[in-house]
Amino acid sequence: MNDPESRKIASPFAVTIGDPAGIGPEVIAKSWAVRKAQGLPPFFVIGNSRALSAVWDGPVIPIGGPDEALEAFDRGLPCLPIDMDGDIIPGQPNTDGAQCALHALEFGIGLAKNGAVAGLVTAPVGKSQLYSVGFTHPGQTEFIAERCGVARTNAVMMLAGPTLRVVPLTIHLPLAAVPDALSIDLIRTRSLVTAKGLTRNFGIEKPRIAVAGLNPHAGENGNMGREEIDIIAPAIQSLRDEGLNIDGPHSPDAMFHAAAREEYDAALCMYHDQALIPIKTLHFDTGVNITLGLPIVRCSPDHGTAFGIAGQNIANPGAMIAAIRMAEKAAQNRAARPDL
Amino acid sequence: MNDPESRKIASPFAVTIGDPAGIGPEVIAKSWAVRKAQGLPPFFVIGNSRALSAVWDGPVIPIGGPDEALEAFDRGLPCLPIDMDGDIIPGQPNTDGAQCALHALEFGIGLAKNGAVAGLVTAPVGKSQLYSVGFTHPGQTEFIAERCGVARTNAVMMLAGPTLRVVPLTIHLPLAAVPDALSIDLIRTRSLVTAKGLTRNFGIEKPRIAVAGLNPHAGENGNMGREEIDIIAPAIQSLRDEGLNIDGPHSPDAMFHAAAREEYDAALCMYHDQALIPIKTLHFDTGVNITLGLPIVRCSPDHGTAFGIAGQNIANPGAMIAAIRMAEKAAQNRAARPDL
Repeated sequence: MNDPESRKIASPFAVTIGDPAGIGPEVIAKSWAVRKAQGLPPFFVIGNSRALSAVWDGPVIPIGGPDEALEAFDRGLPCLPIDMDGDIIPGQPNTDGAQCALHALEFGIGLAKNGAVAGLVTAPVGKSQLYSVGFTHPGQTEFIAERCGVARTNAVMMLAGPTLRVVPLTIHLPLAAVPDALSIDLIRTRSLVTAKGLTRNFGIEKPRIAVAGLNPHAGENGNMGREEIDIIAPAIQSLRDEGLNIDGPHSPDAMFHAAAREEYDAALCMYHDQALIPIKTLHFDTGVNITLGLPIVRCSPDHGTAFGIAGQNIANPGAMIAAIRMAEKAAQNRAARPDL
Repeated sequence: MNDPESRKIASPFAVTIGDPAGIGPEVIAKSWAVRKAQGLPPFFVIGNSRALSAVWDGPVIPIGGPDEALEAFDRGLPCLPIDMDGDIIPGQPNTDGAQCALHALEFGIGLAKNGAVAGLVTAPVGKSQLYSVGFTHPGQTEFIAERCGVARTNAVMMLAGPTLRVVPLTIHLPLAAVPDALSIDLIRTRSLVTAKGLTRNFGIEKPRIAVAGLNPHAGENGNMGREEIDIIAPAIQSLRDEGLNIDGPHSPDAMFHAAAREEYDAALCMYHDQALIPIKTLHFDTGVNITLGLPIVRCSPDHGTAFGIAGQNIANPGAMIAAIRMAEKAAQNRAARPDL
């Protein structure tokens, strides 16, 4: 009865179009085209249908609301329309497209918050385009967190592939600023959100978290940096004292080979590339960005707008397919644990 | 006629025992045991034979010099003996063992320098043990460079696996010290040695070098750090102006997936884990450390003494086998290009 896999999700999933001139429309359409072979749940796109027809000649079905998506999904790609002025030329982003991307995101968050959709999948946006229309957040994740009433520090970015999940503690910082940005508090907060998120979204009852060191060989007892001794190890110890299944600091270069990955459910990494290098080395075309700590399910493919290849029909939909599938699993797992 | 693969190497290869209490003796013996299946060239070990018999019951044949190894290799593992007092207990290193490791290394360098062996493969040493017997170098590489009369900065550590070669620009530094350690000169020197080393040791006529950025997304035009603009890009440009096939700075997280690795012969990385995370993620059991810029061939398996598992017959000889094979290829390629 309580097997999450068997839980039927009654609502469809919403996929925001992202920047209409990026590869979002193409990978969404390609995902719909393989929905049966991939066993994808019903979803619809929120965006302007011209973005789809510019790169795809398959069937697009305009819908008036999420409930219509379930019936339409078999016949075509359901599209909840967002008005947009201006041209849509793949590879050539403009402010009208940025406006459309932002409206789609706002709309999608609202639908997810009120339960009209089972989860939100977001296609990539162009940040400099968004900034030009008044967007002030570092990225979609922070925007979604704010709209959900969650403090930024409690909305945790996890990158997940078939054999590895990583959480970067710091993200878009110069490398030189990373050491000063680390703190016991930050490690504690991210670890607690990660542990709960692994249970809630992935159905892992007793999640195991492995924490990376900052320095080569995790500092070799202070010979190559003291952050492990002064910050990372004390944070881990305090979390262990509270019963969390967490260990480290591990030598960063010895954490990501196949046998090492068996030992944990998520790796907490100190900086962007410590997390992103291994996940993208292993799962470049199938990596999913899932935000932990939100009241809603939110996933996105771990790639950008790729304006350079938009409109050429060469974009790989693997990560979008993986994101939609991960959103479904997360919704199922959450339904099984309404207490979390 | 000039096909390097067909060049017969007349001399055997020397493998130093490393710390007798580490996994060196075991992986050397295991490599000899599979010499035929793996097609390994004749080699002998330099070390105390008790280290071998402590972990292996196969045949060990004492030899008086490298020339005797060729004949003995079919019948047993040839061993050029190093005297050693004291016990050899796997997993329990002592100063006698460190002394033996150091003598073996000195002996091996001498044989390689005078051409009595075709190349040198070094098993791992225990650095704290070596320090206790008066060793003052950061590692074997720097010691070998000095004995070969090569300045440290010109002896370049490359880690090479079946699908990736990386060169870390800085190595055993705290992460916080990395940004200040970068310079145009350092990038230039390492790149030039790397390019020549790829031709000389790997037979690549026009080697392609990809240079990583330091910061996330290679700094995004200065938004996340300026080292790319101030140091890395100018160094690359000056090398391109001189005809080197080198490009970057690349976003570090987008350099190491399968398709990206096709685009270069070696990746020049800014710090230890930027190089070591991808190579160990991909090639944990087969990574080889090869020193470029030396007058001799020098390879070693990319793992440590692993005292914790020594004597248990569970050490994986994959990296030692790969190191011996890479030494042979390097010797063949060098024989084909005596002009370099």
